[in-house]
Amino acid sequence: MTRREAQVASQRIYTGRVVKLDVDQVRFPDGSIGELEILRHPGASAILPVLSDLDGPDPQVLLLRQYRYAADGEIYEIPAGRLEPGEAPVACAIRELKEETGCTAERIEPLVTLYTTPGFTDERIHLFVATGITRGEAAREADEFVEVVPMSFTRALEMVRDGQIQDAKTAVTLLYVAGFRAGL
Amino acid sequence: MTRREAQVASQRIYTGRVVKLDVDQVRFPDGSIGELEILRHPGASAILPVLSDLDGPDPQVLLLRQYRYAADGEIYEIPAGRLEPGEAPVACAIRELKEETGCTAERIEPLVTLYTTPGFTDERIHLFVATGITRGEAAREADEFVEVVPMSFTRALEMVRDGQIQDAKTAVTLLYVAGFRAGL
Repeated sequence: MTRREAQVASQRIYTGRVVKLDVDQVRFPDGSIGELEILRHPGASAILPVLSDLDGPDPQVLLLRQYRYAADGEIYEIPAGRLEPGEAPVACAIRELKEETGCTAERIEPLVTLYTTPGFTDERIHLFVATGITRGEAAREADEFVEVVPMSFTRALEMVRDGQIQDAKTAVTLLYVAGFRAGL
Repeated sequence: MTRREAQVASQRIYTGRVVKLDVDQVRFPDGSIGELEILRHPGASAILPVLSDLDGPDPQVLLLRQYRYAADGEIYEIPAGRLEPGEAPVACAIRELKEETGCTAERIEPLVTLYTTPGFTDERIHLFVATGITRGEAAREADEFVEVVPMSFTRALEMVRDGQIQDAKTAVTLLYVAGFRAGL
């Protein structure tokens, strides 16, 4: 059943800068009708910049230490941002990498696309890894408070393990790259 | 700077069954004032049930195949759900495991707690792994359409790698357990 078939009615509650909130009447797979809150989101891309050879012994990666109001302080994240209208996920990843870190990359590899929290939003995040990095000048938006933090891949994974990296897209990207590098 | 210090004003836009949407005026770290949409969420727990010895050669895990309106169809997930008022994350994990799969577990190990998408929500998800499983009868909520799918850990990781597992909490939990089992 597609969403078009499932949707009985949709009420737009709020149109914001980032998200739109709808309350939809939905026909469930058993034919029953229920009401669901759904946050419409344009989707996002996130990208892990790897400074040295990804197949080398312990590559350097770049993380951001970023103030997040929702997280009540600074958290570590990989560069990421929302898709602009009509923008391809890889173009968004390249743009966010440049804006947030000043870096350009020779190679961008798609990893996987995930629903961030499918219980209440249609947001999907497209994950990438970037290698062949050239560093440059960042050009951040006014409400982004970001410090670029280079560290070893090993250290970043330790920070996932012990909970210092609290951002889901960052944890999953580091674990994905590390795990499949290790031949899992 | 804590959120209390950062918050200049807060307007409740919508109070829903699952989420509350606020538009807050926020003082950023540089002293400037801006407006942010923030979805208040009570938090959630998710738990990976491992049927056979986690340290054995290829343990069996249980996934759910679940209809999600926001994902426009059925996706694979581990058991998960929202915290009830005052509920401890581990109690929520045990409850959701029982409700969604009918399983009880001898051992519940906390893994890590992550912000699902800190750009627009304060939702944190607490991840757990369960071993020493006894299977029983599920007791699902009316709007949950769920099939329990046992599979090998190896197969589940293949489905993360090739994008068949599209749910972020499920991908990160499988990769976390697999990666740190492998000594990453």
